[in-house]
Amino acid sequence: MTPNGKVYLIGAGPGDPDLMTLRAVRMLGDADVVVYDRLVSPEILAMAPKSADMVPVGKAPKCHTVPQDQINEILAERALEGQIVARLKGGDPMIFGRGSEEAAYLQARGINVEYAPGISAAQGMAAATGVPLTHRGLATGVRYVTGHLAADKTLKLNWESLADIDTTLVVYMGASSIAEIALRLMSAGLPANLPVLAVSNVTTPRETRLLSHLGQIGVDAQTLALRTPVLFVIGRVVSLYQQAALNQMPPLPAAIAGE
Amino acid sequence: MTPNGKVYLIGAGPGDPDLMTLRAVRMLGDADVVVYDRLVSPEILAMAPKSADMVPVGKAPKCHTVPQDQINEILAERALEGQIVARLKGGDPMIFGRGSEEAAYLQARGINVEYAPGISAAQGMAAATGVPLTHRGLATGVRYVTGHLAADKTLKLNWESLADIDTTLVVYMGASSIAEIALRLMSAGLPANLPVLAVSNVTTPRETRLLSHLGQIGVDAQTLALRTPVLFVIGRVVSLYQQAALNQMPPLPAAIAGE
Ligand SMILES: C[S@@+](CC[C@H](N)C(=O)[O-])C[C@H]1O[C@@H](n2cnc3c(N)ncnc32)[C@H](O)[C@@H]1O
Ligand SMILES: C[S@@+](CC[C@H](N)C(=O)[O-])C[C@H]1O[C@@H](n2cnc3c(N)ncnc32)[C@H](O)[C@@H]1O
Repeated sequence: MTPNGKVYLIGAGPGDPDLMTLRAVRMLGDADVVVYDRLVSPEILAMAPKSADMVPVGKAPKCHTVPQDQINEILAERALEGQIVARLKGGDPMIFGRGSEEAAYLQARGINVEYAPGISAAQGMAAATGVPLTHRGLATGVRYVTGHLAADKTLKLNWESLADIDTTLVVYMGASSIAEIALRLMSAGLPANLPVLAVSNVTTPRETRLLSHLGQIGVDAQTLALRTPVLFVIGRVVSLYQQAALNQMPPLPAAIAGE
Repeated sequence: MTPNGKVYLIGAGPGDPDLMTLRAVRMLGDADVVVYDRLVSPEILAMAPKSADMVPVGKAPKCHTVPQDQINEILAERALEGQIVARLKGGDPMIFGRGSEEAAYLQARGINVEYAPGISAAQGMAAATGVPLTHRGLATGVRYVTGHLAADKTLKLNWESLADIDTTLVVYMGASSIAEIALRLMSAGLPANLPVLAVSNVTTPRETRLLSHLGQIGVDAQTLALRTPVLFVIGRVVSLYQQAALNQMPPLPAAIAGE
């Protein structure tokens, strides 16, 4: 049994269609059906073939429209019917994207899976703001963590390990936990004046930014009610922001730019 | 003074031209001159306009063909002459790519800089092998570090912080330091049987792979004289490799596949 259908696990990047890879664009163009997350921008959905079935399975925060096992089922069913299924995800499917969970399910059923990697939100942030993820003298490495709460409503993070001043820390899915994350990082030794950049809807026309610091970001994020999706970059590299912004972009108001 | 010249800092991705972003391809196509690193694959260089000047400044390991300040100088000179300069880098320019250092130099001279992010080698590895960077129950985050030695020939890494079993660790530039890195991680508490995947020239026709574990990778890497560029992925997510490989790829010999 080798059905002709297959599933393309496609990283759509952070929002700007210009940041999709050639492979992602081609795979999307071949699709009979497009199964997409809420994070995929309207600009990218517009690139699907006119003839393709469009199936939203978007997960809004705290409201999983379609449960994961049902998503798996939809993908498998369509592929087994012989269709080319484009599974479109924001960013990279292998970074907080559940790409490998879906792949494991499909492969166990004998379904062919192919990947197109995508520019992850952190990389979109770097290209859009000029703030690098590593930089000699400022960060010897970079780390992506999730601020998503576990089932028991707590954060499962190793704070001692995270409080490393030489590593850029990027928090995905941290909109509702950033205040606690900041407090814990300070308790574990990071300085309150360490700069933090919050960027929401990065690389889209809806992009907004907020420059803050560890001692202040919890309050700032709440006051300004940052729209999701939002990413937090914590570390010395953020000190390059003003400079990059001055040279590259229209002048920014102190708190938020972009709206 | 606003010269018409500018510098595009372009991430070329890990090697396969298919993994370049639309923006990267367009920027490269507009170039009057292409200044490129050794890591950029011949397949990608072939996409430059026939008319473009091709300037290699490639850094071989331990042999910086052109020192960084001279690279900066070349970029600035060409842009100030009014040319469109494509500065092509492997992977993403903002991840161990010195993109922000070159940008700072150029912007200080009033030169316009624009970025195209690129698929980083770790993401290329994930798409090529099926090994994710994060996965529920196996890794709550991912961390990129450099195995490059500091000027005093030592590794400047925080071992206690790195020895976090819940985080996928990706070592860039680790070809000559992986044995020491593995030892230090074990001393700091990571288990000797933690799987390690080494992938060299990932996403190119020259791709090779080696599956090992923390207690063995130092010896294996030396015995097999892995070709550079090589990336090491350390963590529980690597346990998904065999499975992914079985479903997706031709059968692999135990040690190395791809040659
Ligand atoms: C489920 S994760 C998916 C990450 C995605 N696979 C990636 O590689 O970027 C969703 C989180 O990604 C981040 N994110 C994705 N797109 C973003 C964007 N355009 N701007 C800011 N953050 C974004 C936010 O932190 C959001 O909560
Ligand atoms: C100076 S760093 C540049 C990293 C690049 N900016 C990126 O984002 O991938 C060079 C290191 O990247 C890794 N690398 C780059 N391309 C690779 C490839 N095709 N296969 C394996 N490793 C690669 C290797 O670890 C190499 O030593």
